[in-house]
Amino acid sequence: MKFAASLAAAAAAAAFAAPASAQFAKAEDAIKYRQSALFVMGQHFGRIGAMANGRVPYDAKAAVENAEVVATVAKLPWAGFGAGTEKGRDTRAKPEIWLEPAKFKDHQEKLQAEAPKLLAAARTSNLDTLKTAFGAAARTCKGCHDDFRKE
Amino acid sequence: MKFAASLAAAAAAAAFAAPASAQFAKAEDAIKYRQSALFVMGQHFGRIGAMANGRVPYDAKAAVENAEVVATVAKLPWAGFGAGTEKGRDTRAKPEIWLEPAKFKDHQEKLQAEAPKLLAAARTSNLDTLKTAFGAAARTCKGCHDDFRKE
Repeated sequence: MKFAASLAAAAAAAAFAAPASAQFAKAEDAIKYRQSALFVMGQHFGRIGAMANGRVPYDAKAAVENAEVVATVAKLPWAGFGAGTEKGRDTRAKPEIWLEPAKFKDHQEKLQAEAPKLLAAARTSNLDTLKTAFGAAARTCKGCHDDFRKE
Repeated sequence: MKFAASLAAAAAAAAFAAPASAQFAKAEDAIKYRQSALFVMGQHFGRIGAMANGRVPYDAKAAVENAEVVATVAKLPWAGFGAGTEKGRDTRAKPEIWLEPAKFKDHQEKLQAEAPKLLAAARTSNLDTLKTAFGAAARTCKGCHDDFRKE
């Protein structure tokens, strides 16, 4: 039984060809995982945006807390876009993700470069610095959505 | 929803009451948020469990990476259980969550005590230590699910 389970896990690993830390039992789980991580990140990112755009009062501590979550969670969704995960659950992911992997990877890397900068900016407790970093990060989100997310 | 629109929605939500870090545009978003955070946490926790239970080979580095995500994300779901979020989207949350808040809070605190211990155990690179910490953390998950999650 254990042996069979190991084989199944190995097969799943091979099917998704991802690092050991990035495996899913089935495509549906991978899609749900990336959607979940992106939603959580979006909520926290949006709270920083509300401060950056003056819709809520600037709260330096809350900005740091939200930016910490963004910086951590920004690393996660990409593991959920492995081969074979273009379907299996409702998704707005465009097929181009799997047809233009280098371009998609470039977007991921841009966000993962901006997220720590956003956190560093939040830690300065300077709202103007935060606004600038938020704008840059928001442009990376939008750039990827424009290219790879259906309306 | 378009990116700008979702940012605006998050901003609108942030304009209303509650701690700045714990606000949602609508109950549906709060439910989706807590489900998302719990799903992401569950995936990473499950990968540690697969090692602890011998279903996949022990990989000390992967265990630490997964435990880091668990430790960060374990702090998040609870903000999504605010007043008025017992409905608004399919949920397995039992009404008892809002009727027995002290008991629910106790479960949250137990997990948030176990998650850093799990990370510390992962960092020892000792599988037996990891197994013990995983077992303790898993019992806190189960304890809360038994009391507060529908089948």
